[in-house]
Amino acid sequence: MRFPLPLVIFSILLIFFPLDSFSRRTPFFEILIRSLPISDGGEDIGGEDVGSSSTDAYCNSWMYSVETNNIGTWATIPIICQSFVEDYMNGPRYLSDSKVVASYSLAFAKDVFIGGGKDAWIFDADETLISNLQYYAENGYGSEIFNETKWNEWVVLSAATALPASLELYNDLKSLGFKIMILTGRGEGQRELTQKNLNNAGYSGWEKLILRGEGDGGKTAVMYKSEKRAMLESEGYTIHGSSGDQWSDLSGSPTAKRSFKLPNPMYYIA
Amino acid sequence: MRFPLPLVIFSILLIFFPLDSFSRRTPFFEILIRSLPISDGGEDIGGEDVGSSSTDAYCNSWMYSVETNNIGTWATIPIICQSFVEDYMNGPRYLSDSKVVASYSLAFAKDVFIGGGKDAWIFDADETLISNLQYYAENGYGSEIFNETKWNEWVVLSAATALPASLELYNDLKSLGFKIMILTGRGEGQRELTQKNLNNAGYSGWEKLILRGEGDGGKTAVMYKSEKRAMLESEGYTIHGSSGDQWSDLSGSPTAKRSFKLPNPMYYIA
Repeated sequence: MRFPLPLVIFSILLIFFPLDSFSRRTPFFEILIRSLPISDGGEDIGGEDVGSSSTDAYCNSWMYSVETNNIGTWATIPIICQSFVEDYMNGPRYLSDSKVVASYSLAFAKDVFIGGGKDAWIFDADETLISNLQYYAENGYGSEIFNETKWNEWVVLSAATALPASLELYNDLKSLGFKIMILTGRGEGQRELTQKNLNNAGYSGWEKLILRGEGDGGKTAVMYKSEKRAMLESEGYTIHGSSGDQWSDLSGSPTAKRSFKLPNPMYYIA
Repeated sequence: MRFPLPLVIFSILLIFFPLDSFSRRTPFFEILIRSLPISDGGEDIGGEDVGSSSTDAYCNSWMYSVETNNIGTWATIPIICQSFVEDYMNGPRYLSDSKVVASYSLAFAKDVFIGGGKDAWIFDADETLISNLQYYAENGYGSEIFNETKWNEWVVLSAATALPASLELYNDLKSLGFKIMILTGRGEGQRELTQKNLNNAGYSGWEKLILRGEGDGGKTAVMYKSEKRAMLESEGYTIHGSSGDQWSDLSGSPTAKRSFKLPNPMYYIA
């Protein structure tokens, strides 16, 4: 098996500089926080003042930069934004944002000419079709470094729930005649659990459920997902739409004709 | 001169289906509005009720989809969101969102190794370096179809003001040693006026000011701007960063190493 040189270099670098060290190495959010009018003194950051309007203003703008992919790689949310993220995820705005994305997705889909059985729509799984909010609620809403052991224990429960706007869109697209491809960063080892969870959440009738195989181990999500889109195209599918909560679900070549970014202020996948 | 076939087909289609007809032809926002809990009855949409919390909720989510490029081509803002856009553009959130984008841009820029005089940063002009808010305030904040005559009269005034976070970033990047490229969709015919306006707003010392030339007439912004990035690379420049308020400022091949999307809920350029 051959590995591209940049990947080898990147992997070696990761040994010495694991991703989670970035947040420790670079006083990134500190720079930002100091540069922004979050507080007058400083002692009113955190605790009961987290919900103050200046913190909310900052966290709103931070989320703007998360969603527009301005931040680049990040490991955890700014600690002062934990309450903001909690409120967003549990409040009406997450539902409303997701619903509007689904509306635009469906409006586009209805104009697609369907024929020949090769019209595909790709969905990511986590935070796109199913919500792991319960897991993140128990683990700081993205303020804690990703813990693979805890995450795998959660996956075993198959307890992620459907995102309501996505379930409706999924069924509408199926009715329109799209072949649904679920393309997830989860590994083949979790295929049965993922199927079970998707079924539990109300999803059925997909064309393919694609998980990371043995050869996909070292790849970034962008590389892995781009390769799978290329594979689908080589099998004759036209990828009309792609829905994901991460830019790495959507970007890279080839892209779908239209890509739809769902909100997720809790975590980032490169 | 040769034109690629898709462009020719697109141009012919435009004769019969001008862009602004989309908003008339497709009851797009109507579909959305009906699908969302904006009002209980219907008679409370518009007028003094525009500022109601359900309209704001919808317009917030609409703006989420604008900024994440989920909407695709659009000609005007939803009329019920005019007050929302007015409040956003004139309020603290626009400043705060822009400031956070600039902070992330500068944090990235500070980690770039500068040497050899070919380290470039690209800025778009309108709604990136300079603000045409006065023009849009007088023309419905994006609720009216673009009027080229009125726009050109505004350009003659050279009265667009600096976006404060962008002016600071611009000067910081210049100090760091970046060569600043201003890449605008304005035409060569407006070169003098654009220079004058940029100077009036406090900008100086750019490396190149690139405007649409004669050969760029029929090109989309993505095509035109991608070609200019390719040209800069062929001249030996490394494009580290690119800042723009439109996705068409940033996407297309080649891209900058990092792209930064500034907010603009008022208009869309393909």
